[in-house]
Amino acid sequence: MKKRVLVILSGCGVRDGSEIHEATLTLLALDRAGAEICCAAPDIAQTQCVDHFRGTTAKESRNVLTESARIARGRIVPLTQADLSQIDAIILPGGMGAATNLCDFALTSGSVTVEPSVKKILLDAQAAGKPLGFICIAPVIAATLFGSMGVRYTIGNDQGIVSRLSSTGAVHVETPVTGTAVDTRLKIVSTPAYMLAKRISEVETGVSALVSDVLKMA
Amino acid sequence: MKKRVLVILSGCGVRDGSEIHEATLTLLALDRAGAEICCAAPDIAQTQCVDHFRGTTAKESRNVLTESARIARGRIVPLTQADLSQIDAIILPGGMGAATNLCDFALTSGSVTVEPSVKKILLDAQAAGKPLGFICIAPVIAATLFGSMGVRYTIGNDQGIVSRLSSTGAVHVETPVTGTAVDTRLKIVSTPAYMLAKRISEVETGVSALVSDVLKMA
Repeated sequence: MKKRVLVILSGCGVRDGSEIHEATLTLLALDRAGAEICCAAPDIAQTQCVDHFRGTTAKESRNVLTESARIARGRIVPLTQADLSQIDAIILPGGMGAATNLCDFALTSGSVTVEPSVKKILLDAQAAGKPLGFICIAPVIAATLFGSMGVRYTIGNDQGIVSRLSSTGAVHVETPVTGTAVDTRLKIVSTPAYMLAKRISEVETGVSALVSDVLKMA
Repeated sequence: MKKRVLVILSGCGVRDGSEIHEATLTLLALDRAGAEICCAAPDIAQTQCVDHFRGTTAKESRNVLTESARIARGRIVPLTQADLSQIDAIILPGGMGAATNLCDFALTSGSVTVEPSVKKILLDAQAAGKPLGFICIAPVIAATLFGSMGVRYTIGNDQGIVSRLSSTGAVHVETPVTGTAVDTRLKIVSTPAYMLAKRISEVETGVSALVSDVLKMA
């Protein structure tokens, strides 16, 4: 029986959407492991659009689902249509979109709000005992939603972010780029990827380890 | 001595730019092989912008360099600034952008015109004995530029495209998704990738083989 894994994307590009290498290497690791992949994204406007050549904000309006479809080659559904009963695990790649579109971590200095459809499916999946994987900056969502349960997570070693999230109750585990932080009790896995990676092959190692850890618990 | 490889991108997304998986897996294979990567793209308007969720043309104007920078995480130069004396090999991933932005193969039924900066660097590199790699649909550019030299190339097994390119003098070599067509005389390598691939792991196998073949000749 194939494991069915939902990959939640947040746009297309490290500065305003899903980090493309992390998302692509998630799909590669899942395919190599024989998993069935379903991609989804919220059908909402991006909170920003960044010119990735100049590093400046662009005066453009883009949609998270429409841009995410670039990574998914069109095979993607609005997140509200994802059916949790048909899913064995969920993985969220990183990229600034995870911190600006899937939640508002990078837009506020206060408490973090998670996008409603993302919040609902992650809470429901965790309650149903389905494993969750969070890559790069996406673990801020895990800390926000599961901090009160004392989730163990990693963001690599960024003390500023760790300190900001400590009030949630989440417990940070310093982890190298090739490793994962595994909370076996809550079935939540995280890996630093480009929070620490200096090269794409390091991302591949960490993301493959995360996918393996998630599938073992699915 | 590290091999220095120029990767020429054509936007960001299978339907109007570089195919994201092919481009990312090219970067991964190069990094794993210890190559030094330089990404470049023409600083020109895309000929089209496609909504990848709906599959329809979008009334938007995007720039090839700016969008390519999403895949390159901002580490990219305009192609006219690439210095061939600092480059040992060149690779072009596929995606519709290779056939609409880097040349006009998909926009015309007549003879094909290659974008001037792409044409110049590829002709100069081949004349200087530097190997070239073409992935997926990008080999139409190889057939256009090197057909008169009788280049051996693959586009997988698409007889419509093969027939249209036969007048150039290029010789098609039917090749499976995991393989490469290697023209050792001209130092030109090609692989079908998503011209044939049903899954991303097949793309990874073919692209890794192409990168290996290109680096051997560099």
